[in-house]
Amino acid sequence: MGHHLVRKLDGFFKPESIAIIGVSRESMSFGGTSFLHHYLQAGYSGRLYPINPKASEVLGLKAYPSLSSLPETPDLVMIAVRADLVPAALEECASQGVRYVHVLTAGFSEIGTEEGRQLERRLAAIAEERNLLIMGPNCMGPYCPSVRLTAWGAVPGRDGNLGIISQSGGVTQRFTEYICSLGVGVSKAASIGNAAVLDNPDFLEFMADDEAIRIIAIYLESIRDGRRFFELARDVSPRKPIIMLKGGESEQGAATVASHTGRMAGDQKIWRAFFEQTGVVPVSNMNEWVDACLTFSCLPKTQGKGVFIVGGGGGNSVIFSDSCIRAGLDVPSLSRESMARIRPFVPIAGSIAGNPLDFWEAFLNVKRLFEILDIAYEDPNIHMVIVDRLIPRIAFHSPELPDSVSEIVDFIKTHRQAKPTVFTIDYDGGDPDLIRKGSQLRSHFCEAGIPAFPSFERAIGALARFQKYYGHFVERVKTKG
Amino acid sequence: MGHHLVRKLDGFFKPESIAIIGVSRESMSFGGTSFLHHYLQAGYSGRLYPINPKASEVLGLKAYPSLSSLPETPDLVMIAVRADLVPAALEECASQGVRYVHVLTAGFSEIGTEEGRQLERRLAAIAEERNLLIMGPNCMGPYCPSVRLTAWGAVPGRDGNLGIISQSGGVTQRFTEYICSLGVGVSKAASIGNAAVLDNPDFLEFMADDEAIRIIAIYLESIRDGRRFFELARDVSPRKPIIMLKGGESEQGAATVASHTGRMAGDQKIWRAFFEQTGVVPVSNMNEWVDACLTFSCLPKTQGKGVFIVGGGGGNSVIFSDSCIRAGLDVPSLSRESMARIRPFVPIAGSIAGNPLDFWEAFLNVKRLFEILDIAYEDPNIHMVIVDRLIPRIAFHSPELPDSVSEIVDFIKTHRQAKPTVFTIDYDGGDPDLIRKGSQLRSHFCEAGIPAFPSFERAIGALARFQKYYGHFVERVKTKG
Repeated sequence: MGHHLVRKLDGFFKPESIAIIGVSRESMSFGGTSFLHHYLQAGYSGRLYPINPKASEVLGLKAYPSLSSLPETPDLVMIAVRADLVPAALEECASQGVRYVHVLTAGFSEIGTEEGRQLERRLAAIAEERNLLIMGPNCMGPYCPSVRLTAWGAVPGRDGNLGIISQSGGVTQRFTEYICSLGVGVSKAASIGNAAVLDNPDFLEFMADDEAIRIIAIYLESIRDGRRFFELARDVSPRKPIIMLKGGESEQGAATVASHTGRMAGDQKIWRAFFEQTGVVPVSNMNEWVDACLTFSCLPKTQGKGVFIVGGGGGNSVIFSDSCIRAGLDVPSLSRESMARIRPFVPIAGSIAGNPLDFWEAFLNVKRLFEILDIAYEDPNIHMVIVDRLIPRIAFHSPELPDSVSEIVDFIKTHRQAKPTVFTIDYDGGDPDLIRKGSQLRSHFCEAGIPAFPSFERAIGALARFQKYYGHFVERVKTKG
Repeated sequence: MGHHLVRKLDGFFKPESIAIIGVSRESMSFGGTSFLHHYLQAGYSGRLYPINPKASEVLGLKAYPSLSSLPETPDLVMIAVRADLVPAALEECASQGVRYVHVLTAGFSEIGTEEGRQLERRLAAIAEERNLLIMGPNCMGPYCPSVRLTAWGAVPGRDGNLGIISQSGGVTQRFTEYICSLGVGVSKAASIGNAAVLDNPDFLEFMADDEAIRIIAIYLESIRDGRRFFELARDVSPRKPIIMLKGGESEQGAATVASHTGRMAGDQKIWRAFFEQTGVVPVSNMNEWVDACLTFSCLPKTQGKGVFIVGGGGGNSVIFSDSCIRAGLDVPSLSRESMARIRPFVPIAGSIAGNPLDFWEAFLNVKRLFEILDIAYEDPNIHMVIVDRLIPRIAFHSPELPDSVSEIVDFIKTHRQAKPTVFTIDYDGGDPDLIRKGSQLRSHFCEAGIPAFPSFERAIGALARFQKYYGHFVERVKTKG
């Protein structure tokens, strides 16, 4: 794809009109009609044209027999007919001057037959000959909350600064919903499936130049032009963090890739070198992916590895220290000045004064927490702060704690030396009351732009990735400065 | 401790009477009075005697000026006076013929002063001279739901087959509450704090012989008699799985141990060898600890590493396969017979037929799930099954699924060839409705004795530990058989 085309990929995400080939009056099962239904439900801001030669109306919208009978050339056409009918539909698009096509239909190379592979080659050949930009086949296509183009994933979604490029529709659906529920908005998501025409690098190049996008999340199983992807990633990564979930790392996973998107997952060693050389942030599963994107989207840059841990309980302090070190971060001693400030109000018996700081009172009296945060923000040994925000539970016989989230958020956001600060709230298990309270508390923090995690280990995993990214580029930044 | 004493540790957990030295009429803050309150609240089945020379009544109970004024010699005395007053209280216990003492008081070796260490040595010397069995100091003491001796942790708790030995009160409180909320009961828990007299091996030896206990969970920071602990663990482990969270693995964690329980955490290499040689199951944090205990307490033995994955979505299938392999498990191909049984009802396009099996219909029609489980249970390549139970969510536009938990549980529990089977339910995030539905579903499975996890990675982590344990002892078992 040439540069002029890449810039134009915006057309997939902000179409003013969409025609859908392959809608029926009867079936609402997965396909064109369900997409139409979901576009309507999400309140898509443009015009929708169902194409069906046998219907005058579908879901309350006027239906048209063909693209040629439409009152305008649609900005985007979605094809949802049977696989063997896709080539004819593409020819129709081309002859009507359509440029952007999303092929939802599955049944191409991913089914593992020669017929499937041939059909996919034919699709690519038509795109080449007729100058069509195609997303797919076998994919969910574009997603863009700002124009309510949200037939899948979080509906109507939340506009934000995340860009997503993914080879799995299901994974992307879950990811957009998950990340949006934690307060992080999405600018554009591309579910590219078999990526027979436009591949990951095309969208990466596009999102690299898109000013609305600040962080790029990628789910990748395979890549056609590895060299181009590597060079692009190395170029983009210092400007925009790329958080990448690579599927098919194992032999078994790679075998599954073949039947998922009909492609090869590539050598694990190559991918390890890729991450080391580009600074792209690797994650291994959905939770790590969301945790990292939440962290990168909310926090200011970290200047180092030193984590200050505030929590309650001696055993937790020990376990949390171990977790930090295991993740590659440090738990440095506080400076002499910090210790002198802490000593007067942390009792010597039954507490652990220092780093970690085991200090229940911080949760009963928010002013104490502010003193502690202030100490940490001024301590040169400390670069990031994790607060294990205890929640009242029967086991601890702890009193109800004041809901001081807004005050805490204000304190952190207005502190002139605030360092990256995250919260952990431990509510997992089978106690519905604890789950409700804990998840609400977590949501309050996240919605206010302070990352909060359901376990210490997930928090530390995210901070470790966050630090590693900035550590990777620290020399480059120094040179620039 | 000699064998005859060890057997008698039962006295800590099933006392018919408890005297508490160090209760006040005024303060309900952490200490003797709050313990008394919580024993009353939990409905402790025995007699409670508050000792306070200045009060006639505490919390509605008749108070006594001293142990000597009690109508009986109490089975257990809890000491909650100031640290420097503990020796005198111990002398009083001894002179009244008391055998079992729980010292709640902190302020001994863990505060890091010579005075603190001296006081702890004095406590140990009195125990030795006067033949006292002491839990503590600086600990929450015994916990036993069957007699409602549950002043801390899950209240009133749930009787079961788990034994717990822990050097952290806070960790044990959370652990008992957490595990009980997921349907796993506790026979006895010992929070042993600084363990100045009775140490972990004493309780381990006791729990090894206790028929009510089938699985032993340990939180350990340090050990006095490493050789004895090693030999005991090696002896007990083949009969009763020991799931151990070792705190102080890192240098920073070990430094925290010193200020937590005043002891040394020991060399990491030694502990690695310990786990390899004993078959004790290592975990690194609270979630892993609970996940492993849940798995060991619910599942029949596994015969191998082959996991069959049932779920929905191609990308998930790829990611899950990778996770299995990364955890040290296998994702074997199904047998030819199994494939022949699956083919007729799994569509070729849009699905992945095999292992993993990507098959939404399994969740819409429970009979399909049963067919699939039956195939897996009969397939010689498969040893364990993970079902990623999808839940209805907006992002997938999925219909409400029938609540078939009871049917599923019945099917698995009555299948004559059932293999270890777990469920994962992905409800993390900030959507309250999803969290409520998902956590309820998880609880239903767990309460019915089918382990269910909030993420695939947590499930696979638990199954990997489970398999490793049985793999460790497979030769020994074969010889015996």
